[in-house]
Amino acid sequence: MLENNFKVSFNSTLYILSLDPNEDPVTGLARVSSLNSIQTIARRNDRRRWEQERIIQRHISVIDHDHILSEKFESLDYEIIENELYRDEESHKDHQRKLFRQSVNRWVVCFLIGIVTALVAAFIDIMVYYSAQIKFHVIIHALTEKCDHEKIKGGGCIWMVLSAWTFYNCFLVGIAAVLVVYFAPASAGSGIPQIKCFLNGIQIPGVVRLKTLISKAIGVSCAVGGGLAAGKEGPMIHSGAVVAAGISQGRCVSFPMDFKIFEYFRNDKEKRDFVSAGAAAGVAAAFGAPIGGVLFSLEEGASFWNQSLTWRMDNSFNIWEIPAFCIIAVIGGLLGALFNSLNVRITKYRKFYIRTNFQKIFECLLVAATSAFVGFITIFVVDDCKPIGINPNLTEVTKLWCPKGQYSAVASLFFQNPEESVKSLFHSPINSFRPMTLFIFAIEYFLLSLWTFGLNVPSGVFIPTLLTGAAWGRLFGIGVEYLFPDVTGIDTGKYALAGAAAQLGGVVRMTISLTAIIVEATKDITFGMPIMLVLMITKFVGDLFNEGLYDLHIELAEIPFLGWHPPKVCRNILAQTVMRKDVVALEPVESVQRLVEIIRTTRHHGFPIVDMITAPQSAQDFPDYGHLKGILLRSQIIVLLKKRHFTKDYRGKIPAEGAQNVSLADFRSDYPRNESNIPMLNLTPEDMKCFVNLKPFWHPSPHRVPLNASLNSVFVSFRGLGLRYMLVVDDNNKLRGIITRKDIARFKERRVKNQYLVNEVYISHFNN
Amino acid sequence: MLENNFKVSFNSTLYILSLDPNEDPVTGLARVSSLNSIQTIARRNDRRRWEQERIIQRHISVIDHDHILSEKFESLDYEIIENELYRDEESHKDHQRKLFRQSVNRWVVCFLIGIVTALVAAFIDIMVYYSAQIKFHVIIHALTEKCDHEKIKGGGCIWMVLSAWTFYNCFLVGIAAVLVVYFAPASAGSGIPQIKCFLNGIQIPGVVRLKTLISKAIGVSCAVGGGLAAGKEGPMIHSGAVVAAGISQGRCVSFPMDFKIFEYFRNDKEKRDFVSAGAAAGVAAAFGAPIGGVLFSLEEGASFWNQSLTWRMDNSFNIWEIPAFCIIAVIGGLLGALFNSLNVRITKYRKFYIRTNFQKIFECLLVAATSAFVGFITIFVVDDCKPIGINPNLTEVTKLWCPKGQYSAVASLFFQNPEESVKSLFHSPINSFRPMTLFIFAIEYFLLSLWTFGLNVPSGVFIPTLLTGAAWGRLFGIGVEYLFPDVTGIDTGKYALAGAAAQLGGVVRMTISLTAIIVEATKDITFGMPIMLVLMITKFVGDLFNEGLYDLHIELAEIPFLGWHPPKVCRNILAQTVMRKDVVALEPVESVQRLVEIIRTTRHHGFPIVDMITAPQSAQDFPDYGHLKGILLRSQIIVLLKKRHFTKDYRGKIPAEGAQNVSLADFRSDYPRNESNIPMLNLTPEDMKCFVNLKPFWHPSPHRVPLNASLNSVFVSFRGLGLRYMLVVDDNNKLRGIITRKDIARFKERRVKNQYLVNEVYISHFNN
Repeated sequence: MLENNFKVSFNSTLYILSLDPNEDPVTGLARVSSLNSIQTIARRNDRRRWEQERIIQRHISVIDHDHILSEKFESLDYEIIENELYRDEESHKDHQRKLFRQSVNRWVVCFLIGIVTALVAAFIDIMVYYSAQIKFHVIIHALTEKCDHEKIKGGGCIWMVLSAWTFYNCFLVGIAAVLVVYFAPASAGSGIPQIKCFLNGIQIPGVVRLKTLISKAIGVSCAVGGGLAAGKEGPMIHSGAVVAAGISQGRCVSFPMDFKIFEYFRNDKEKRDFVSAGAAAGVAAAFGAPIGGVLFSLEEGASFWNQSLTWRMDNSFNIWEIPAFCIIAVIGGLLGALFNSLNVRITKYRKFYIRTNFQKIFECLLVAATSAFVGFITIFVVDDCKPIGINPNLTEVTKLWCPKGQYSAVASLFFQNPEESVKSLFHSPINSFRPMTLFIFAIEYFLLSLWTFGLNVPSGVFIPTLLTGAAWGRLFGIGVEYLFPDVTGIDTGKYALAGAAAQLGGVVRMTISLTAIIVEATKDITFGMPIMLVLMITKFVGDLFNEGLYDLHIELAEIPFLGWHPPKVCRNILAQTVMRKDVVALEPVESVQRLVEIIRTTRHHGFPIVDMITAPQSAQDFPDYGHLKGILLRSQIIVLLKKRHFTKDYRGKIPAEGAQNVSLADFRSDYPRNESNIPMLNLTPEDMKCFVNLKPFWHPSPHRVPLNASLNSVFVSFRGLGLRYMLVVDDNNKLRGIITRKDIARFKERRVKNQYLVNEVYISHFNN
Repeated sequence: MLENNFKVSFNSTLYILSLDPNEDPVTGLARVSSLNSIQTIARRNDRRRWEQERIIQRHISVIDHDHILSEKFESLDYEIIENELYRDEESHKDHQRKLFRQSVNRWVVCFLIGIVTALVAAFIDIMVYYSAQIKFHVIIHALTEKCDHEKIKGGGCIWMVLSAWTFYNCFLVGIAAVLVVYFAPASAGSGIPQIKCFLNGIQIPGVVRLKTLISKAIGVSCAVGGGLAAGKEGPMIHSGAVVAAGISQGRCVSFPMDFKIFEYFRNDKEKRDFVSAGAAAGVAAAFGAPIGGVLFSLEEGASFWNQSLTWRMDNSFNIWEIPAFCIIAVIGGLLGALFNSLNVRITKYRKFYIRTNFQKIFECLLVAATSAFVGFITIFVVDDCKPIGINPNLTEVTKLWCPKGQYSAVASLFFQNPEESVKSLFHSPINSFRPMTLFIFAIEYFLLSLWTFGLNVPSGVFIPTLLTGAAWGRLFGIGVEYLFPDVTGIDTGKYALAGAAAQLGGVVRMTISLTAIIVEATKDITFGMPIMLVLMITKFVGDLFNEGLYDLHIELAEIPFLGWHPPKVCRNILAQTVMRKDVVALEPVESVQRLVEIIRTTRHHGFPIVDMITAPQSAQDFPDYGHLKGILLRSQIIVLLKKRHFTKDYRGKIPAEGAQNVSLADFRSDYPRNESNIPMLNLTPEDMKCFVNLKPFWHPSPHRVPLNASLNSVFVSFRGLGLRYMLVVDDNNKLRGIITRKDIARFKERRVKNQYLVNEVYISHFNN
């Protein structure tokens, strides 16, 4: 799903430059993405040397041909560029005032995020409500009145209703699919994996744009209203994140607007913090669970807290409940792992065979129609009519199949709002559902939600999974009651709750935040202990087979995600192996010519500054980079070129014509980086001969490691500090290489036959 | 309180060496602690230069003579020493098995921590219960029976009871004070500030020892049983942390025992993680609040999560409740700030005037006697007898003053278990307490708990503060009811809860975790929203005046604590200003002679390795250190000396007599570092001429920054990665200085008249 979210159309020149003749012509995969065509031969030789070296350590490092990282994802810049401008700002007179204003604004922004997120969530809820109202009351009611003369059970009329029902559902789901496919691809799916990646420090294009929010809010209403096995919680969390990003920036990229407020928050670091708050607000809005919201953004999000500790807790519970809950937890872990494994297969299949926009929309309609049909067919197969008295809160459609005064219990599961169905599984009296109903419903809904997650519509996995789990949990409860008829206090609703928690935990593998969300959502703190126990066991069992659904989808999308811990066996993988040696470095004073060339021919985002670059003695070697002085970002170079911050002489005494001063505000107003107007710089050949003194602009203390630092320590620094670059220097502080997120994310931990291995994956250029 | 926790008796030689002739002879304070006597003159010159430079930037940097950091606190070592031995370990055959065993053991240890912490908490609870039983039933009952003939209200008998009561309380408190003063000084107080510091990376001697646990558990039972205005929750959290440290290490330092298990966890990093889990288990045990426990260790503890975001949350609540809760929150913030400010004054006073052990114990007894007396006197002053029917759960002593069939409401507040008093304030019917009773009780208990916190007994501040807050909160509720008599649904208990939350929030300034703890403790999730609102406002108001109580006590104890954020204006404070230049560096091969000298004459814990050290040209200069190669720890040098890992020649070919191989296990078994047997190394003059090749042992990639890195970036790395050292290098990677935690913690943010300033504080040698 993620891979469809955007289309970066590569400049064809760039594409040719990035094709490495050394790489496998069949797969088209490069071990490192290579952008500097001059040094191809040097790289080839280097690579051969490297491959030979690697034979020695083969027992720990295995090249993995199946797993791939996409080249297209860039890191966010969390590091502060502490250049001279930045340092001078602090001694300005109004800096103190600015600091104060900033800390007040932080509260204002958070307050606004809360309000607007709540409004968006309310909008979604209202939309879902009215689309259901139209379906139930206008369409179905009209039809059933028309054929009211068929008093007896079932009859031909039900087929007319089925058709209208299916058509309406397909219509709504069609709107959602069209929005996603044509308007905002980033709004597909639940959005949680994307937000997780954003908070991990990965720039996923379009994920926090206003148009994504619009498409997400309307789309999820249509998808849920259209009867898909889809939830609205994930999309609400995503919406909260978009709201936060938008408000904190005080402007909009999708529709060019700039309110000229909160300009100080226009950098990746501040934005990340607000997005994390927005995701928390989204959880609070979706589940009415503010504490769960905070925990969610801790467990899934921006936190640098060591996760492995958050779910090993002391707790106490009723002794006699332990075995039953443990069994439910194990079942949940197994079913969750099965769900994840099957969903990954479906997603892979979808990736290969469903590629055109037509196919994508058609699949959505197919799922919508199938969801409706499955429900109706089940009514025929499972014929469990109950007197209406037990459950007064029913829609017309549940009464169609049954005689007057009765309703179909299975129809009430399929054709209600999913949240209502969950509630009735938790709270209905013990005989409301027959075991066979629950059994068939659980299997069918499991399969439907399996097919639905990953479709090109905004749709969450929380509620469908809770519903599946609640169904088999209740079935389990009925079984326990049958086995121990004398034990009072067995409440099938309690087992439904445990089953729901287990199924959801087995799929998403969250523990602490899920406990808080479920406890807060159920408004009942007494279930805190058993839920925590269930989620812990579930995670343990599920982790034996695969990862959580979100992590699997992140991997499928080839995103260079950095987990909580470095791979277990990476002490002997050194920085000199991990790093890329073909660095594009700059000298302190550079010609405009070279800067323009670098911007046009490379797609790097950071350029180390060294005191001097000496050309290599032979074509096989890399240049001799001098001592590391700092790092300059691509966005900064573009601002300098735009502002024509040139001098005619190398020493920087004679300003070029039309040269402008550059201030920190210029860099901020250029955020987020907009490269569209590079070709229109209108630089004359005269300009090209000018020079730019980079000293006031570079960041003087980029993070550096020696050649023999291990991947372990590099990983810890990257994760702990949220880095985008790390420079590798030798014993004399001469630059030798650069390490970016992708270079680290290539090394993945795998556990095969009780052995911890480190796999290396390829980096792909393809924009699949 | 903290400063009494241990006595490191300095070697007198060291002390003389560390006296800097340049320092102020009156205060005895050195700007940097100086240990290398040879370079005194160089340092003097350097300092003069530095002082001149600083005049330029005086508007941001102010030397602070009042605040002091103590030299005696060392950092924990979180960084992995990635030396050759460590890297080789990974390729050993049984390494995979070890990895697996380790991950299983992690679960086992966490499970044991949970069990044992629960047992310790249960022990404390039972002890408190029985000490109260003895007091109420044996002593009071016997006495009241004796003088049962005085039927009428009050009478002389009450004085007999008062004396017995006071004597018994003083006896219990005396036991607690003696334990703290003579047996385990680290067990004084609540323990939360110490655990907070431990998780922040500061080694506080004795804080996680078994004898601290014993003294804490018995002491807190006696203090609470002895009627002090003290809670047992903080000590329970501390107990959990000690339990975790002990179990995870598989051995005990207080009483030499080694179970030879969990040896792999014997390093500061693993220990920190377990201590954090233990503190969470302690919260869970103390409040029955496992989610609150997790949040507590996140908010107060080891987390690297950006705290400022955890308490700005979207939430929704009943509109009509907002004003009342807001007023309560403001009052709580003001009273909390007052409490903190007064408690700091008392603690400072105590530090200067109460120094001998006798004085300390006497103060404890005095407080115990006063607590008892205040209660009895209040009974006379506030004469509010109520019929027993309202509150059947009463102890004998509450009935003494009143006629038969009645009890004294104020006595029930003073002479019950504090938890019971809190409960009765929350849940009693509306007329149970007269306004005057609540008013006087709140003031008296406020003052008593003010005096009690910081005494030399284990005592927490949670419950006393909750009790104070519940009293004035209930009073506030009565006021609201009086003003709006027609509004139904005003429940004074609800206002008592809000007041309790506000008072506690105002004192400790926690928000998210406190919400969870209170919600979990009250077992009622519906109060989540208003409590969160109250705690947010309370923190906002309180922070206008001062910091939280724990942070203030950490500052009073002169501990080099690193907060969540660097000081706001520190862009222009560069690494070259922050660093210490008189580095004691090592060459790759060193003589035994020099190593022994260094160990004996310095107290540094890390020694950078450079390729060559050239003596300075004049005595005014520092040596010319070569290129940075790595870092070696003091503990490693000691192991090498103990194991006689010497060679007779410089090139390392001829092993010395009795030389032993050194493995990773030797370093692990030496943890925590034990220096007591250094003088008994029994090295001969022959040995002194030998050499040690340090290459296999040093950590090759210590963190390094250039001279012009800002304090801001240094701080972020220290905090984000939990560093102990950072080395400062020039553009050629030559070592120029070293930065430790204390060098950073010296720069403190202060806000004076709306200006953010950075104060520099002194580092003191004194062991006060």
